[in-house]
Amino acid sequence: MKLSELGEFGLIARMAAMARAGEGVICGIGDDCAVIESGRPGHALLVTTDLLVEGIHFDRVTTSARLLGRKALAASLSDVAAMGGVARAFTVNLAAPRDLSVDWVDALYAGMAERAQWSGTSLVGGDTSSSPAAIFLSLTLLGACPVDEVVYRRGARPGDAIFLTGRPGESAAGLALLQAEKGGRALPGPRSDGEKAEREHLTGRHLDPEPRMTAGRRLAAAKRATAMIDVSDGVAADLGHILERSDVGARVDAPSIPVSDALRAAGSALGLDPLRLALAGGEDYELLFTADPGLHATDLSRAIDLPVSRIGTITAEPGLRILDHDGRPLDLLRSGFEHFRM
Amino acid sequence: MKLSELGEFGLIARMAAMARAGEGVICGIGDDCAVIESGRPGHALLVTTDLLVEGIHFDRVTTSARLLGRKALAASLSDVAAMGGVARAFTVNLAAPRDLSVDWVDALYAGMAERAQWSGTSLVGGDTSSSPAAIFLSLTLLGACPVDEVVYRRGARPGDAIFLTGRPGESAAGLALLQAEKGGRALPGPRSDGEKAEREHLTGRHLDPEPRMTAGRRLAAAKRATAMIDVSDGVAADLGHILERSDVGARVDAPSIPVSDALRAAGSALGLDPLRLALAGGEDYELLFTADPGLHATDLSRAIDLPVSRIGTITAEPGLRILDHDGRPLDLLRSGFEHFRM
Repeated sequence: MKLSELGEFGLIARMAAMARAGEGVICGIGDDCAVIESGRPGHALLVTTDLLVEGIHFDRVTTSARLLGRKALAASLSDVAAMGGVARAFTVNLAAPRDLSVDWVDALYAGMAERAQWSGTSLVGGDTSSSPAAIFLSLTLLGACPVDEVVYRRGARPGDAIFLTGRPGESAAGLALLQAEKGGRALPGPRSDGEKAEREHLTGRHLDPEPRMTAGRRLAAAKRATAMIDVSDGVAADLGHILERSDVGARVDAPSIPVSDALRAAGSALGLDPLRLALAGGEDYELLFTADPGLHATDLSRAIDLPVSRIGTITAEPGLRILDHDGRPLDLLRSGFEHFRM
Repeated sequence: MKLSELGEFGLIARMAAMARAGEGVICGIGDDCAVIESGRPGHALLVTTDLLVEGIHFDRVTTSARLLGRKALAASLSDVAAMGGVARAFTVNLAAPRDLSVDWVDALYAGMAERAQWSGTSLVGGDTSSSPAAIFLSLTLLGACPVDEVVYRRGARPGDAIFLTGRPGESAAGLALLQAEKGGRALPGPRSDGEKAEREHLTGRHLDPEPRMTAGRRLAAAKRATAMIDVSDGVAADLGHILERSDVGARVDAPSIPVSDALRAAGSALGLDPLRLALAGGEDYELLFTADPGLHATDLSRAIDLPVSRIGTITAEPGLRILDHDGRPLDLLRSGFEHFRM
């Protein structure tokens, strides 16, 4: 069997099966971060690692090296945020073609250094190699969190409300705009400066996402979230990860998904359904979490300084049902972004 | 400027310059591991990361996936050993072509799992992606060590003796044998079963090195080593790293370099100078350390259960001088193995 037949999640499942939950490992593979004992009683170490491959995760035509550096670290920071932790230190491995310019690499590291400073983390190590083709970037980020405050994917309970920060789908719309531009595809508009600013907002959301560090930490410290994940694969796919880990199902009310004006306008120009972008688009790096249904989105929003929407309810019945405004199930959305099946 | 003009060490130096020695970082880039505060008073966390690229660091013709998995983790374990630490947990990122077989990947993970069990470490996370060309493997390993027992590259003092475990050059000879075989080059011999076994020993030293975990830990716990490094780039190059970091020089007595019979025989068959292989060959994963000149190699050997040779002396005068049996300086050896200049 080839990797292309197994798919990315199949491969990760095989790797997880071989991983031994050894001494000092509180949670191994299967969440946004691994959680291991730090040696300090009551305090855990968080570990997350990400791989970015040119042509698959990024494109040198549509992103600059500096923004790529910022985003690479942001994606890992977002994993620490989704566990409720504080980021501490990271390592970077880079394989690059021999004819790549040193300026490009300097800009990449400068972008990472910006996000490192922003988040109070330090680059502590790295390895480099030439690459026969394409640029490969591998980051590993360490974080910390009190053991009893770590928020896992597995904690959702039937009856919990499902909350989401920010406006999902904007990153996917930004990517579609960039791809249209790169492909030389003429889009209608923008018809005004406002619409131009909206499109720049969307491409910015794709190229330079801001991980929700403070929000994740506050939710964990206040013990508000029963389960949490960051939206990297898309709202539907990432909610699916919570459901699978928590052994529950969910009902999502499509009309409660916050679709921004910018997303609606771009969807119209691109000929893409904004709701589909909001549910299936990836790389928003917002936080998706479950919590006591007595909590109000407005109170949560005030507590974490971000827009918060209540988008559905956890059910004992397995499966994810997405209902339209008449309560009818929406078509199944393509789920996830699997690299080997691209 | 292109990366190929800068070279690997130049690139790492640029990265190090951008790394901020932030809060909680005891030692950042520039040693075998980064050393950071673990949160537990008096105890440090060690972090090391390695990148392996097909066609540069390994060859699917001469190594099996299982041995590659064993060696990949062994190389990182060796970095923790060289700091005096105990290995704890690791993450693995893998980018692989879509048509790679699942069996190959399973064998890779199985090899890593073997070395993980051997060393008492746990695989706690990983990411996967397809690759447009070649296999990329990135490992990050965490270890632990009491802060006051960590052994750095920077601690060598003039007058210290230089010690080395094992028999260097055997891995390089093993690699040369494998390359000769792959290239269809006929070598003289082996003329006996003994010589055949010797060659298998050498290729085994290259394909399946054993990191010196217990020895490194014992040397650190006994506070015997003033500086330490593992031999990955070669004895001369790695001693050079100690000298640079410690701001000292060294005199190495070439006749004291332990050249094994197996290495001598293979050198003769390959037409390569065994002493040159012993000084410049890489990937032996032995430990090179400096210590009080009053210590005897035989006592150290008994303490750490490995052959130990005393190969020279640290000098206040900078530079590395390698002297032959008449006390004449040997030609400068090619130093290091820089990936962008290959």
